[in-house]
Amino acid sequence: MESKRIAAEQAVELVKEGMKVGLGTGSTAYWAIQAIGRRVKEEGLNIQAVATSVQSEQLAKELGIPMMSFADVDVLDLTIDGADEVDSGLHLIKGGGGALLREKIVAAASKQLIIIVDESKVVNQLGKFPLPVEIVPFAFELTVKKLRNLGCEPKLRKNGEELFVTDNGNYIADCEFAAIADPAALHDELNGIPGVVDNGLFIHMANLVIVGSADGSIRSISKE
Amino acid sequence: MESKRIAAEQAVELVKEGMKVGLGTGSTAYWAIQAIGRRVKEEGLNIQAVATSVQSEQLAKELGIPMMSFADVDVLDLTIDGADEVDSGLHLIKGGGGALLREKIVAAASKQLIIIVDESKVVNQLGKFPLPVEIVPFAFELTVKKLRNLGCEPKLRKNGEELFVTDNGNYIADCEFAAIADPAALHDELNGIPGVVDNGLFIHMANLVIVGSADGSIRSISKE
Repeated sequence: MESKRIAAEQAVELVKEGMKVGLGTGSTAYWAIQAIGRRVKEEGLNIQAVATSVQSEQLAKELGIPMMSFADVDVLDLTIDGADEVDSGLHLIKGGGGALLREKIVAAASKQLIIIVDESKVVNQLGKFPLPVEIVPFAFELTVKKLRNLGCEPKLRKNGEELFVTDNGNYIADCEFAAIADPAALHDELNGIPGVVDNGLFIHMANLVIVGSADGSIRSISKE
Repeated sequence: MESKRIAAEQAVELVKEGMKVGLGTGSTAYWAIQAIGRRVKEEGLNIQAVATSVQSEQLAKELGIPMMSFADVDVLDLTIDGADEVDSGLHLIKGGGGALLREKIVAAASKQLIIIVDESKVVNQLGKFPLPVEIVPFAFELTVKKLRNLGCEPKLRKNGEELFVTDNGNYIADCEFAAIADPAALHDELNGIPGVVDNGLFIHMANLVIVGSADGSIRSISKE
């Protein structure tokens, strides 16, 4: 956790006065939101934020971070979020926490997407982490078959005995590909399947990845 | 209406004993479901069907058409549905009735998609009919901006004073493009926008279009 916290605090240094900021979801984004809250309180940092989940929104409000409505967002300056896997081309797998769609909508509205991870998330090739795919409940059996035809083993995510339901009322199929040779092509193939709302591949979206190590050191991966 | 009924009855002649059949939604599909019901009753035609809307499912049940669950569908033999526009390449715009996603999921599971229209729906170039795009409610303002950036004028569909909500809990943005030069490219661009669930372009899906005219004549457009 210490490595995530240190990386998150470095990322939050990129937040500047007057910015419109997107807040991610999950254990890493938690530390970023904490650090932003501290800067708002201690330095009087003046920003406006939107959140990618009810959970992050509540945390931000508790910490006194001023929130704005999506109707008032034209462009966000910066979004800070975590990821489940990152490759050297800055492509990501996200969605382990089930918020991939909201995270992707916010990321797509941001000039810069800053990703915070620990060393365990950095991989040579994406796909060891099962790719989350958000699908509509209607005729989900047909959509799962189409996913299987792409060469993966899809498992519908559970929440206890029930199927897990996203904030948008959909299901998540966690798709075991083992190795994803061409993330951009797979992204388009998946989104071309009727019944797929979106998938956890974030292609050409991240601008900077900040990696925290257990020994307290930090490195970054950025686009050339 | 007579032209739609005649075309629908001809389409239903393609339904054969033992088939698994997808039932579309809307005023044209209504006539097809009526004709299938009559064949089930009068000829003892033995088929199983799935429907693309609650409305069509109810009608089919009232007419005594045996219905199956999507869990039991591997492949459908035939789906019969209407369309809002058809071009000579058999690309379609659908979704005027708001059921585009369910219709597309069922069509994608079908070996053959038979489309029934009247002459007014046949066009040289798609796009005069505003293209329905299904979008998630979360941060829909951002998604509408992304749609506008593609060069269209999106209008959120209303149901009286409220926003129209699809069977899947989403909104519909009706996008005025005026003319769609490359339907396949636009389809992929739209589905690549986070927040877009799917869009009303049906590319390389229809196998046969049956066109009914007001004078009672029928013609078909099929793939070369």
